[in-house]
Amino acid sequence: MHHASEDERFMRQALALAVKGPAVDPNPRVGAVVVADGVVVGTGWHAGAGTPHAEVVALREAADAARGATIHITLEPCNHTGRTGPCAEAIIEAGIRRVVFASADPGVTSGGGAETLRAAGVEVVGGVLAEDADLLNPDWAFSLRHGRPRVTWKYAATLDGRVAAADGTSQWITGPQARADVGRERARHGAVLVGTGTVLADDPHLTARDADGTLLDRQPLRVVMGLRETAPEARVFDDAAETISLRTRDAREALSTLQERGIRSVWLEGGPTLAAAFWRADCIDDVIAWLGPKLLGDGLVAVTDLGVGTIVDAIDLRTMDVRTMGPDVRWHLRVHRPGEEA
Amino acid sequence: MHHASEDERFMRQALALAVKGPAVDPNPRVGAVVVADGVVVGTGWHAGAGTPHAEVVALREAADAARGATIHITLEPCNHTGRTGPCAEAIIEAGIRRVVFASADPGVTSGGGAETLRAAGVEVVGGVLAEDADLLNPDWAFSLRHGRPRVTWKYAATLDGRVAAADGTSQWITGPQARADVGRERARHGAVLVGTGTVLADDPHLTARDADGTLLDRQPLRVVMGLRETAPEARVFDDAAETISLRTRDAREALSTLQERGIRSVWLEGGPTLAAAFWRADCIDDVIAWLGPKLLGDGLVAVTDLGVGTIVDAIDLRTMDVRTMGPDVRWHLRVHRPGEEA
Repeated sequence: MHHASEDERFMRQALALAVKGPAVDPNPRVGAVVVADGVVVGTGWHAGAGTPHAEVVALREAADAARGATIHITLEPCNHTGRTGPCAEAIIEAGIRRVVFASADPGVTSGGGAETLRAAGVEVVGGVLAEDADLLNPDWAFSLRHGRPRVTWKYAATLDGRVAAADGTSQWITGPQARADVGRERARHGAVLVGTGTVLADDPHLTARDADGTLLDRQPLRVVMGLRETAPEARVFDDAAETISLRTRDAREALSTLQERGIRSVWLEGGPTLAAAFWRADCIDDVIAWLGPKLLGDGLVAVTDLGVGTIVDAIDLRTMDVRTMGPDVRWHLRVHRPGEEA
Repeated sequence: MHHASEDERFMRQALALAVKGPAVDPNPRVGAVVVADGVVVGTGWHAGAGTPHAEVVALREAADAARGATIHITLEPCNHTGRTGPCAEAIIEAGIRRVVFASADPGVTSGGGAETLRAAGVEVVGGVLAEDADLLNPDWAFSLRHGRPRVTWKYAATLDGRVAAADGTSQWITGPQARADVGRERARHGAVLVGTGTVLADDPHLTARDADGTLLDRQPLRVVMGLRETAPEARVFDDAAETISLRTRDAREALSTLQERGIRSVWLEGGPTLAAAFWRADCIDDVIAWLGPKLLGDGLVAVTDLGVGTIVDAIDLRTMDVRTMGPDVRWHLRVHRPGEEA
């Protein structure tokens, strides 16, 4: 007899293992627990692209004890051969009798593991604590569903929507807390993306730093897109992190290249032109806005022509969170696409 | 023997009486409690301009019991003859032995009551629960200090600072909750002010209504300022509330007229031109911003040239409060004038 509560208990253990994996990675975070006669005989978690999957790690630890046992996995076992072999096959070979998983694998190539297992006579229970497991890998799931990384647009402006004064000065629209938060957001994304225009105008490093200016452990891939020539000695090309140039002005083309590189989330910084190109291509999913409590009444705007001529065509967003951050307001919004879940 | 705790106890009673008075009025809200031998023998509160002051009401109720008694008043007794006689004199005539008050009267003509009382041999204790009492009449105190009403600017725009799309359409930038909140703010202010341009362009009623469109009990004075001709059949001139026209474009001149009429707080609605005139004259003190979670990328802006050419000259505000309101964000800001308290 297997009680739902026992499945959930071991699934919670698997969830706790999963979060040991890297939050920003081409692969999802996964945890696995092998249980024989009510005793944990193997555990595993995925440590990132190129390392063994969680199930494989747990089965290795369990060794012969896996025969006739139950494995609890936070994600449906994969069905395809990538850098590692298909996990569904490994589970069958190990003699596992019962598989309990949380989230279904939405991937076209990787999905279908449950069917393969059932066809081999393995008992399969899916959806156990799926809501908790879905929170582990939102960007990964998004990129599988949409065929491109999730894109978050950085917006920083005054109350009246200005990013610089009439003479071009802009230091500082927002305070040090907001600027440190931008550094944390860079580190939370797979890539940070700007246009060649921003490199030419501002020569930014685009590294993720804390409030003291210290480089954070994880650095995003720096991406410069556009057709204008940039100097090789520009700061974005220094050794602090990897940088690639994409010689295109097309948002979908750039995101397609990044998707192929395993980038699941993009942090979009840069000027009004690049932002407008991404908005017009419907390639922005989230906005994080830092609003400085100032008025300029004139000067440069954060975004220009979006092709919106009349109010009913305005880009609709939903508020996810709003709070003060030092003197500023931090507002997280999500693009509202009717019929689509958050 | 009078203990501080006893003074505070009766002062709390006076504070509770004070809040029965009208929150929006030319006069401050005041409460008074007369105590003889530890027993309350008279209470009073000020019911608005033209009615007796709180002390006078309390003394009338106490009648002969006021002789040798203590009076607790939330505001220093006035010293001048307005529509009613000076309260300091009434207190002396009633034979009060001791006066305990909370806030000092900051008025040039009305202040000085404490000195008059002391000169007549009355014991005077000031500042008891003054912080609580100061919260009763912030707009009244502001207008005495600055010689003009406090002005709050209504700002309603998209995230990117637009008040209408490129074709002029603007319904609706914000949701019904925000619009109902604007109605409540109108009712909370002594006057609502627009320019002739807004009357010509939008023909607003400018009445305070709840979410259902029902007129609220209290209506602000409606004020139209400017030099352009407006039609007498404009909605703002209907019978729902009083309306006056001020034939000036000068912010300080308009506020001076309103101050003389006993207006202590002004709710500034209307277009970019009027707002810019008030900002340039340093005649705005608070901003309440309702930000709709939308992007227009183009269209009309909420405020135009403020004479700010470079970032260090930006108008500096402080966040008082920020929260969601339906789909929108409501952000209350206050103008930061160095060396001045909130």
